[in-house]
Amino acid sequence: MAEIIRSVKGTRDFYPEQMVLHRWLYNHIRAVSARYGYQEWEAPMLETLDLYAAKSGDELVKEQAFVFEDRGGSSVALRPELTPSLARMVAQQRQTLNVPLRWWSFGPFWRYERPQKGRAREFFQWNLDLLGSTSVNSDAEVASVASALFSSIGLTPNEVIIRVNSRQFMEQRVAEIGVPNDRHSAVFRLIDRVDKLSESKWLDYGQKLGLNNHQITALREMLDDRNQWRNSEQLNEFFKTIDHMGVRQWFEFDPRIVRGLDYYTGIVFEARDRSNLHRAILGGGRYDNLVAEVGGEPISGTGFAMGDVVVQLVANEFGLLPEMNPCQTQILVTLFGHESVAQSYTVANELRQNDLRVEVYPDAVKLKNQVRYADRQGIPIVIVLGPDELDSGEVSVKQLATGEQSNIPMASLVDTIRMILESESSP
Amino acid sequence: MAEIIRSVKGTRDFYPEQMVLHRWLYNHIRAVSARYGYQEWEAPMLETLDLYAAKSGDELVKEQAFVFEDRGGSSVALRPELTPSLARMVAQQRQTLNVPLRWWSFGPFWRYERPQKGRAREFFQWNLDLLGSTSVNSDAEVASVASALFSSIGLTPNEVIIRVNSRQFMEQRVAEIGVPNDRHSAVFRLIDRVDKLSESKWLDYGQKLGLNNHQITALREMLDDRNQWRNSEQLNEFFKTIDHMGVRQWFEFDPRIVRGLDYYTGIVFEARDRSNLHRAILGGGRYDNLVAEVGGEPISGTGFAMGDVVVQLVANEFGLLPEMNPCQTQILVTLFGHESVAQSYTVANELRQNDLRVEVYPDAVKLKNQVRYADRQGIPIVIVLGPDELDSGEVSVKQLATGEQSNIPMASLVDTIRMILESESSP
Repeated sequence: MAEIIRSVKGTRDFYPEQMVLHRWLYNHIRAVSARYGYQEWEAPMLETLDLYAAKSGDELVKEQAFVFEDRGGSSVALRPELTPSLARMVAQQRQTLNVPLRWWSFGPFWRYERPQKGRAREFFQWNLDLLGSTSVNSDAEVASVASALFSSIGLTPNEVIIRVNSRQFMEQRVAEIGVPNDRHSAVFRLIDRVDKLSESKWLDYGQKLGLNNHQITALREMLDDRNQWRNSEQLNEFFKTIDHMGVRQWFEFDPRIVRGLDYYTGIVFEARDRSNLHRAILGGGRYDNLVAEVGGEPISGTGFAMGDVVVQLVANEFGLLPEMNPCQTQILVTLFGHESVAQSYTVANELRQNDLRVEVYPDAVKLKNQVRYADRQGIPIVIVLGPDELDSGEVSVKQLATGEQSNIPMASLVDTIRMILESESSP
Repeated sequence: MAEIIRSVKGTRDFYPEQMVLHRWLYNHIRAVSARYGYQEWEAPMLETLDLYAAKSGDELVKEQAFVFEDRGGSSVALRPELTPSLARMVAQQRQTLNVPLRWWSFGPFWRYERPQKGRAREFFQWNLDLLGSTSVNSDAEVASVASALFSSIGLTPNEVIIRVNSRQFMEQRVAEIGVPNDRHSAVFRLIDRVDKLSESKWLDYGQKLGLNNHQITALREMLDDRNQWRNSEQLNEFFKTIDHMGVRQWFEFDPRIVRGLDYYTGIVFEARDRSNLHRAILGGGRYDNLVAEVGGEPISGTGFAMGDVVVQLVANEFGLLPEMNPCQTQILVTLFGHESVAQSYTVANELRQNDLRVEVYPDAVKLKNQVRYADRQGIPIVIVLGPDELDSGEVSVKQLATGEQSNIPMASLVDTIRMILESESSP
């Protein structure tokens, strides 16, 4: 036998068993987003390279994006993130959109990173954004929706924490240390790596950026100061509003959170498992210039993105992924042979018209094998239609959980099935 | 103002207005697939080029697929179709899967074709497949699910027809005309183009393939013979089973249907609008060798794929696309100012905990503007929380449809809201 052709490294196969979990996550996301008035949207998965260039940060565009020339010779990218597409679409319809906009989306993204636990090259992302409002209330709102999703899937603040900071506040602190304005982005990248690099490598990196020892020491001290947020009006307001929203317990200030993307301008935040075993579950913040940067009339935005991989790892760690049978079929109608094909499909048809989920076994194999198939799938009811049953105008209804079997006149079949299904679903 | 960065040609932007229709289609697909016992799954969107090579047909792979080298130097393709991925995944798990498999999927695909009405370069496709059964019942079943989707969205056999043929039967007919075996694929491509090329161009194409005049005339006559299916046991059985399934009125035999993909081996079918204004709505058929061709143990399959573009054009033509408001928010809570932020968010929180969909206006702008926003969005209820209301322990509830406004004590707010929503949803 030839070798089976392989899948692409970093992609995932969703068999029905995995797909029900994917839908489980999507359904929670959908319900939570709707509860806060967010509307679902979707952008193209292919965008021009120009859309990302100089806006998403060099690492994402130059090192991680899948970029190629299409057959017409244009440089296109498989989207590595959604916010630039959001900015483009909002810019295009700015005049007709009724602000504030509350939009969410769940779709595939691609980044060429080394595949590892919690990281795939093709992954899904929940994006949720609020545009057209500059107030910290909006930052607090999107962050609170993130916490609502965690609650919805059963996580608590004992397992997950959302860490918050302000880019403006950090700008101010970094300026106080004596870093000139044109070095701020570089210093933010330095801050972003404080937990990713060893102490000595981090110090080297700081020196390479031109910081003197005094500045590095001051920066290092600043990154350990958990109370400085009280000096920021913006952060004070953020935490007050989050408190009003009833979700203060999910949040804490962390001066090390600056987020890697260049377009953030205000409040930034990220969620992690408390024990820091995994990568960030989600990250986001305010981006007040992005729509203007893609060529649109300026409009403020704030939002976050959550990948599908880490949140499911964390949920799994705490036993929160549900056991779900991908088979939702309620009834298997057996097939005896050529002479009874008509009856099997007629019965199935009638049951389906009564909103029941029904399979007909497609081949006239041994009855035992048909029943075994139903049993393995977890289909609770098998309807046997053989020559005996056809002669008598009845069908045989078998409940696989109990083995009970009885002959039912065709006329009362739907009612009988409903009774069985109700009795099986009650405890 | 700079020019707004453009989207990639042939891709589509799904604003919330378009997204509700996308979900509408998905929800019909999901419900119909489940009613027949099909389970949702999803494949990667990136696959190796090898997976498609020599299986999907030259046109699809060499001319239409988006193929590129990833950063590691491997040739990968954005999937132009799903069936090869299905074959790969089934081959990989062949031993643990409980056959027959009934799987469906809805996701994005890419083909570099000239964008035109009914055709996008990035599009979505519903795929539905039944594997592990060789019987014509299975072909009839998947075809009947296609007709069930049409019924579900309100189409009838007056608008849409599913045309059916058999590759085996055509092989036999083409052999009778005197075409040698090694020319059959070429002649199938000739048949596939009979309605796409002018008569003279079609004749030229036939001669180029090495057919003599006698053969071309015989082929041409054969393609007009609508009754020859009665000579095929397979097609007789197909139409008999389709009749048992109660959907015979959706189907007719058509000798011109052979479908373009090389891997089809048995029954093939495609659906079109009766007036032939559009491209095929869906197409499918049996592929008994594909799993073996990707390196797996042989297993039969039959299924179809339906793009999202043409079916919506046809549905729209017959007025079947629903008017849907993407805003599902039930209540807007207004924001008066700093002193009442706490109350606004507390009220919103309580309503959400009672399963209501609630927005808080994020900025303390003029009340008139907040109400106008709700009105434009179609949010039926506005809760006004000003200093007067706060002092009295009541909130003001305004119904936008009637303009009615009344002060409600906080304690009975949820009940009042529910009553209003119920009265508004009843006729």
